[in-house]
Amino acid sequence: MPAIDFKVKDSDGTSRTGELVTPHGVIKTPAFMPVATQASVKSLDSLDIINTNSQIILANTYHLALRPGTDTVEHLGGLHNFMKWKGPILTDSGGYQVFSLSKLAKISDMGIKFKSHIDGTTLVLTPEEAVRFQESLGADIIMTLDQPSSPNQSREFILQASQRTYEWAIRSLGSKTRKDQALFGIIQGGHENDLRYESVSNITSLNFDGYATGGLSLGEERKAVYDIASYTATLLPYDKPRYLMGVGTPIDIIQAVFMGYDLFDCALPTRVARHGGIYYGNSRYNIKNQLYSRKDQSLEIGCECYTCKNFSIGYINHLFRSKELLGYRLASIHNLSYYQKLMNTLQSNISLGTLNQFIKEFLD
Amino acid sequence: MPAIDFKVKDSDGTSRTGELVTPHGVIKTPAFMPVATQASVKSLDSLDIINTNSQIILANTYHLALRPGTDTVEHLGGLHNFMKWKGPILTDSGGYQVFSLSKLAKISDMGIKFKSHIDGTTLVLTPEEAVRFQESLGADIIMTLDQPSSPNQSREFILQASQRTYEWAIRSLGSKTRKDQALFGIIQGGHENDLRYESVSNITSLNFDGYATGGLSLGEERKAVYDIASYTATLLPYDKPRYLMGVGTPIDIIQAVFMGYDLFDCALPTRVARHGGIYYGNSRYNIKNQLYSRKDQSLEIGCECYTCKNFSIGYINHLFRSKELLGYRLASIHNLSYYQKLMNTLQSNISLGTLNQFIKEFLD
Repeated sequence: MPAIDFKVKDSDGTSRTGELVTPHGVIKTPAFMPVATQASVKSLDSLDIINTNSQIILANTYHLALRPGTDTVEHLGGLHNFMKWKGPILTDSGGYQVFSLSKLAKISDMGIKFKSHIDGTTLVLTPEEAVRFQESLGADIIMTLDQPSSPNQSREFILQASQRTYEWAIRSLGSKTRKDQALFGIIQGGHENDLRYESVSNITSLNFDGYATGGLSLGEERKAVYDIASYTATLLPYDKPRYLMGVGTPIDIIQAVFMGYDLFDCALPTRVARHGGIYYGNSRYNIKNQLYSRKDQSLEIGCECYTCKNFSIGYINHLFRSKELLGYRLASIHNLSYYQKLMNTLQSNISLGTLNQFIKEFLD
Repeated sequence: MPAIDFKVKDSDGTSRTGELVTPHGVIKTPAFMPVATQASVKSLDSLDIINTNSQIILANTYHLALRPGTDTVEHLGGLHNFMKWKGPILTDSGGYQVFSLSKLAKISDMGIKFKSHIDGTTLVLTPEEAVRFQESLGADIIMTLDQPSSPNQSREFILQASQRTYEWAIRSLGSKTRKDQALFGIIQGGHENDLRYESVSNITSLNFDGYATGGLSLGEERKAVYDIASYTATLLPYDKPRYLMGVGTPIDIIQAVFMGYDLFDCALPTRVARHGGIYYGNSRYNIKNQLYSRKDQSLEIGCECYTCKNFSIGYINHLFRSKELLGYRLASIHNLSYYQKLMNTLQSNISLGTLNQFIKEFLD
């Protein structure tokens, strides 16, 4: 029996709602996963995360493998017990951070050799190690190690990266031992349709529990990302969850839901929050502006989140201007609640067949 | 009718338990007040503070007068509504911070001229202004402006500071307009018994709602502080609350409770927490030590605080080593809970007549 079960509920042919049953609970999709990089959604604890109506969180294997070490997390009962989060968790393979954070990452068929961004130690991440790390961490959904490529790179390079991603996917499946974790394959192939097509054919032939579209948040033009993400989605199996990695802004997520993606993750809402950016309606404002110092209403009118139910714009403005840590927490709770409310709205609009209209109004 | 009501409940002749009824609730004494310097107990919100079993908090008028301004806090409904703390609040007069934080503070009979530590603006704090600021903030208990002196200063200087504190106390009483706030007078007089005696005679002749012993946390030898704090306590009226300002470590508080003080405040437990210091039993340890990375028990065995009920030493060690903001919050909740548990223990021991024995064991 697979570790997870996914069922599409409502669909307009492209966009869909669904239910993803995992060992730690049921996720209604489309779903947004807050990022707990180092086993902490920055400034929040598990109760705060629940209060944002988040259903599943993502943690980064690269960070946790370096500190405190996946063996330490395993010793402390795995990620769920470590950070006292009872709901579903997804971990990435660590590959993305190896490329973005460590210097001199050297790739070969064997794996990736890199230097820790913390202490400079030389380490090697192989597809098998990535699975082993993630089995120690114990998330509900784990990811294969892939080799991302960017549009700046040659077709030859992208083709090779995509081919290597396929071989690593086979090795990942082969090294998996835990039955209570789902494994998702990752599609690469850069920005050319034929390479994406080939990657989807290869990866989906391996019958993973779900599929992720990778290689699409490395600084490309938005139009190019939309085109390739959309094309890739049309090729993915209907009955498996589709995860668009590292996406994104509210508008990006809306567009991707429209394309038929089910899962998303991004550090944006919490990072924006720590810089004072507050989401509301279809926009955002900066809470640090002196303009807000005497306002007694909540961050977003009508918002039912913990922050909005309890604190005023004026107080949060003061916390940010005074660099009080509480400000980061309150703003993060609001922004994640905003994202989750957006996901609920998208779900309802798909069910009602009004997604097109909602998107039109949102983009106005 | 006075704004507050204080009754001694149990007393062994020197130490006592009591009940202090304020407009925002009843405080069992001896009581420790967490410090919300800028209208935030650093890293905590009101719910967290309640969860530490704290009954009353202290906020700093100096900080709030500079930012966001007491008029802004008043516009947002006063301190209680501003920070959404429903319990009692005490504000200081701002004098202590003027001397410790701002450069070139110049004192005259009129008041204190100083430069803001934030933007360098020249400002004047008079006894009347200190009352006006605190009436805007709206705490349950407010303090008179005093002139602290330190043991390094001459007897002549200390005498003059004490005399000025008396004159400012008279002016403070004269300028007070709100009936729903209690005003405490502050005893000065340095380290000489005769000057302390004179200050107590002067200040207590004015019939304040409570009395604070000031001028005792400016870097003196502990023995000298104990002697003068103890002597001063013997002179203070039995039926009014006695507040030892800025004290202190657990041992200092225990000693001061033994001397007959009822109220305490200190930024220590939260500041220590942000540096990773964790109180337990009669000692403390540093959570950042690698030694703790794989420990699955709570910060303090038997502790019932939010942090200890939910998270392991290993996880909090990881949060600190990874500089995750959540670590500061969880450690602060524990340390304040530790302080409040200590206050409860002191209360019980006074009621049972076993305070001496408890102190002996604690100091062992």
